[in-house]
This record gives sequence, C-alpha cells and structure tokens, in this order.
Amino acid sequence: MSMRRVAVIGTGITEFGELWDSSFRKLGIGAGLAAVEDARISADLIDAMYVGNMSAGRFIRQEHVAALIADYSGLARDHIPATRVEAAGASGGLALRQGFLAVASGLHDIVVVGGAEKMTDVSDMESSMIQSSADDQEWETELGATFASLHALIATRHMHNYGTTREQLADVAVKNHSHGSLNPKAQFRRKIDRNVVLKSPIVASPLRMFDCAPSSDGAAAVVLCPLDAARKYAETPVEITGSGQASDTLALHNRKDICTMGATKVAAERAFKMAELAQKDVDVAEVHDNFTISEILAVEDLGFFPKGQGGKATEEGRTSFEGDVAVNTSGGLKARGDPIGATGVAQAVEIVTQLRGKADKRQVKDADVGLTQNVGGTGATVVVHIFRRA
Amino acid sequence: MSMRRVAVIGTGITEFGELWDSSFRKLGIGAGLAAVEDARISADLIDAMYVGNMSAGRFIRQEHVAALIADYSGLARDHIPATRVEAAGASGGLALRQGFLAVASGLHDIVVVGGAEKMTDVSDMESSMIQSSADDQEWETELGATFASLHALIATRHMHNYGTTREQLADVAVKNHSHGSLNPKAQFRRKIDRNVVLKSPIVASPLRMFDCAPSSDGAAAVVLCPLDAARKYAETPVEITGSGQASDTLALHNRKDICTMGATKVAAERAFKMAELAQKDVDVAEVHDNFTISEILAVEDLGFFPKGQGGKATEEGRTSFEGDVAVNTSGGLKARGDPIGATGVAQAVEIVTQLRGKADKRQVKDADVGLTQNVGGTGATVVVHIFRRA
Repeated sequence: MSMRRVAVIGTGITEFGELWDSSFRKLGIGAGLAAVEDARISADLIDAMYVGNMSAGRFIRQEHVAALIADYSGLARDHIPATRVEAAGASGGLALRQGFLAVASGLHDIVVVGGAEKMTDVSDMESSMIQSSADDQEWETELGATFASLHALIATRHMHNYGTTREQLADVAVKNHSHGSLNPKAQFRRKIDRNVVLKSPIVASPLRMFDCAPSSDGAAAVVLCPLDAARKYAETPVEITGSGQASDTLALHNRKDICTMGATKVAAERAFKMAELAQKDVDVAEVHDNFTISEILAVEDLGFFPKGQGGKATEEGRTSFEGDVAVNTSGGLKARGDPIGATGVAQAVEIVTQLRGKADKRQVKDADVGLTQNVGGTGATVVVHIFRRA
Repeated sequence: MSMRRVAVIGTGITEFGELWDSSFRKLGIGAGLAAVEDARISADLIDAMYVGNMSAGRFIRQEHVAALIADYSGLARDHIPATRVEAAGASGGLALRQGFLAVASGLHDIVVVGGAEKMTDVSDMESSMIQSSADDQEWETELGATFASLHALIATRHMHNYGTTREQLADVAVKNHSHGSLNPKAQFRRKIDRNVVLKSPIVASPLRMFDCAPSSDGAAAVVLCPLDAARKYAETPVEITGSGQASDTLALHNRKDICTMGATKVAAERAFKMAELAQKDVDVAEVHDNFTISEILAVEDLGFFPKGQGGKATEEGRTSFEGDVAVNTSGGLKARGDPIGATGVAQAVEIVTQLRGKADKRQVKDADVGLTQNVGGTGATVVVHIFRRA
C-alpha cells in the first residue's frame, strides 16, 4: 500500500467534567470548531468527518450522531460524509484511525475527527450498566460482572503473578492526579497522595474509588490533512507515523492470560512497524488508564517495561516527567476525565500539544515522538497511534 | 487517488423475521460464515471486519459488537481489526463503504463486511422509540414526532406538490410484496393487492401499516477482495465500481425541500462519477423503502425518473421486472424485512445475487449493473453503491 503521509494541523478540546449545562451536540461542536480554528482553515475545505462515540443511544437516546455533529457544525450544507465508529472505550482512537486512513489513502484531503460522550444525564447506576455494555452481555454482565469487577480480577491476578503491590496501583493514580493538576482542561486538578487512594471506598476489591476513572462529559477533535500540505496551515505539524488496531475475545475468561492484553501487543507491533520506530524512541505516551491496573498492563504490553515490571516502574517514577517515558501527562483518564468516545481523541490532542511544545507546565522537554493507546472493554479492541513532530 | 478495483466474492444472509430463537451473535456469525463459505476462502485469510449496526446498545444492551462478532467467528485469535460503524438505517451501507475503501486503498486484501440487528427482544413501543433515535431527539422526537410521522409529512407534501396518489403509494408495497413472494429469505412472502394496503390501519396519516417496513431480526454479510485476485475464489466476481456517501440536516424541518433527499442526489452523483456509469446503465436497484413514500423519493432522487414522477412510474410498472429498472427485487425493506443494521448489506447481497444470475424466480434478465441506496433517518445519511458483473 502506497500511502500519503498524514499530519494533525489542529486540535480542540472542551473542559471535561460533569457539565450539566452542556448538551452532547454543544460539546461536539465546541471541540470541532476549536480544532478548525486552531488549524486556521475555512470550514468549507472540510471533506469528511469521523466521530467516535460509544453509547449516545443509551446516554442521551440519540443514535446517528455523526450526522448530528456535521449538521450542527454547518457541514451538512455541503453534504460531507459523516461516519460514526464505535468500539466502546476505543471509539475515539478508532475514529482517528478511520480519518487517518481516509487521508492516507487519498480519498479525502481535510478530515475532522471528533469524539464525544455525554454521560451525566443518566444515574450513576445506569451509567455503570451502560459502561458494562462494552463487555460480553451474555457471558459476563448478565452473570453479575461489572466493568470494574473484571478489572479487579486482572489486578488480583497481576498482584499474584508478579508481586505488584496495592501501593503501586495507588501510585498510578497519584502520578496522574499530579499530572492533571497541571492541565487546565482536566476534570480533577488536585494532587493526591497514596493514602487518599488507599483509604477511598472499595469499588471491586482490590480496586478503590481512586483506582477508577470518573464518568465525564466532554469532547475532543483534531483536523488531519496530507503532510505535504500541512505547513500551509500549521507552524508545527505533527505527523501520524503509525496506526495499529487489533481485537481480542470480548469476554475476559476466554483469554489465555488476563494479565496481558494481546490486542495491545499486536496493535503496538503494527503501529511501530508502520512508523519504523521502537519503544525507546517514545518520549510521551497517553495510555488507557480507566483503572490503575490498566496503565500497568499498558506500559508492559506496549513494550516500555517487561511483563510484571509495570508497577515497580511506576513506583520508581519511570513513567513520570523525569522517567523513561512520560505517561499520561494530561492526567490520563483518571484525572483528565473519561468521556468515553472522546477519550481516544483527547489522547491525540495531548500528544500533539506535547510535540508542538505547547503543554506549558506539563511540557515534556524535547518531546519528539508520542504514542496513544486506546482500549475498548477489557481489551477486545485496542488502537495504537504513533506521532512525530514533523 | 489511485485505488485498487474491488470485488465481492461471497455473500451470506440469514432468514429475516421475528427470530425469537436466534440471538444477535448467532445471526451475525451465521451470515458471516455463509459469506466466507460462499467465497470458498479459508477464514485465516480474513484481514479485517466491518460491522453495520444501529442500536444493539438499546435493543440488546450490547455495544462493542464488531469485536463480539469477530470473537465468536473465531477471528479474535488472529487479532484482526473489527470496526462497527453506525448511521441509523444507513449503517450497513456505511460498513460496506468502509470495507470497500479498506480494500481499494490497499490497506487490507480480504475483508468481511457484515450487518446485523436484533429488534424483537424489546416491545413494539420501545422498538419505535429506538428507531426514532435516528432523528433529531431535541427538535423532533422530544416534541412528539415519530419516525413514521416524519415520513407522513414527506408523503403529504409529495402528494400536494406532485399529485402523487394514495394508490401509487400502495403500489410500491404491492410490487415489493410481489417480489418478496419470490425470495425464500424474505420476511413476508405473500402477495397483496392495493386494497390490503388501503384498508390497513393508519400509522401516521396518510401512511398505513402496509406502507411501513416491519421490525425484523436478521443479518447479512459479504466478502470483499481486490478484483485482480477475485477469480481465484469466485466464478462470477461482482465489482463494486462506485461508492458515494453524503449527509444532510438531521432534522427534516431544516431542509429546503422535504420532497427531495439531497443526500441521495449527492451520494448518487459521487457513486456514478466514480463508476463512470449513468442511470440508464442500471438494470436492478435496491432502494431504501422503509416507507412506501421513501421508494418514490429514491427513484426520483437517484435520477431514474424526474422529480414528482416516481409514483406514476411505479403505477405504470416501470420499477417492476419488466420496467425501466427493476427496483427492490428482494422484496425491499417492506417485504424482505428491515433488520436495520443488516439492511444495507442485504441490499448488496441481492444485487450481487442478481448480477451473478443466481436470483432464480426473481432473476432480472441479463442484469449487468446494479445499485444500492441505503438511508439513515429521514435522509441525514445516504450511501449509494454501484455494482457491475466483472
């Protein structure tokens, strides 16, 4: 496949949080317009739109959300193709991948990729049930498993197999809240210490409230175009040099090893191969820390640390600003927030901001290569992208 | 864009109807395996899967359905990318378009495109509410509009503007039931006459029960590969020569003219241009007759007949087997059934079957070129594909 090189030329993101005075469409349009403005393009140049969203059908009773966002952005006038893609928590990353392929293949020149979710219009219980629709309804959810309890199984096994400690899990949250305190768009901007995590209420043992990402409203968007045209629009275009997607069994119990997300390994292999880069090249990464244990699996399965060493690496600060690789500088899902369909796109926004050198107080020095890892369910879909300052 | 030519080498479809002993996953896998068997390929050759589905989140409380189908088809073993796309009623056509682009661009060689919906696990009232989530919730549904009542507005205006008669609407249903009687997979296989339609209960005046497609369970799938490899697998490969997608305002009241679906016109222009073919070349077409009025708009907006002449053309038999273009030989959504996410793929299955000359009693003589038109909502998304016997 001979592909065109693709760059991100604009980013937009709303505040993340419990945004009771913002509707889904207001959030989606807000992020999209901010990205278009940042790219300094005229809206009539936009050829197509891809939207990542997990469950607007259940959260706000609205399907068909790509057409909705295109319409309320004024783009239906030109009848642009508008496509929603969904893979639970990986919906945003998947939308980015579809947009990337649309430009890489030459089908479209300028594409807006958005992600949005409006989660707080339903009760916490209903929200939890909707999040569980990422898992196997017939073999997991109907038998009583929740999204948190499945991750608790992973955590328990990881602690058993590798000696990962309860404190190391807490350290993921402590680090990400610390990072979030530097991000003005983050849902939680207050530092916490280990004790806050360790004394917080149990959600599904061993996971406690501060091990879990929150329910959030929010949206994010990026504008893509061919790299060779990117300098017309952006001072510092950021190239998407690799894209990998992989699936795995929907139910956790069908995996050979629940301490490894096979789809992360394979998606990362595919992305690194396309990018012709290796783990050691990555300066900054946004990974899918919907639970603290998820970040530990991620930094192992992405190949930053050997299997079983993710907890120790976190404890030693090797995933912090001064570490081997700065992980979740935005605050991650834990502190920046996790409006599900928006998350994968928000990860890209953070990485592009870092590679542009515009991350202010949370800037990783000389960041040149970044990576995003976006997970659906307990790992049945994983999308990995690699970015490089162009 | 230099694209590879793409062929359909296998098709599969389940029975459509109220299939209370079949689950969503059973239907999806059934159609997929039938398509793979028809293509005579080994499953380990499959590179990726795209799944069209509108609202499994609400119909069966399951999101993340592409990973689900990949998993239960045994394809998660190879971690293939599995992507769900959604645009209400156009979800299946959109999945076909994504699969087509994946092969055309060179990204993947062998791709399975599936569509599925399981609608009968909820009450009729709930099903109606879910279908209305294709429309603008804030400006249509919450104010009392239903999916049927919006189409009733279109029908009323079309009758007023162009003199389309109540009998001409009925003739669409009479024709499609007649076609469905020849399709062993159709949900309704009994011929009806005008009086059956005209005396059926009113749903939303002027539309009556027999003007409306049913709620259905079902799934359909096709296997795609590059045309130059297709003869290895298929006796009669069918090429996808054109693909067009377009959006429009989500709410009907924002359109300049509710008697024209602008997205159909634009999607058709794009598809015909790519195919380098014109309306007169089309022998057989599957169009989105979710309501009888929709087929009348479709045959006009696709350019088969001038605006306002669709009803008259139907009455005169010009959309029947012996007419200018054979429309909905499968029975259409009206008689074959309309499991929403499956519909766009089922349309492709019918066209490929016709172009292969394998449509038995409903075969269109010497069918060489076929077209599908798949609509989301009241026309906020339309996808058009053009097929040719290779």
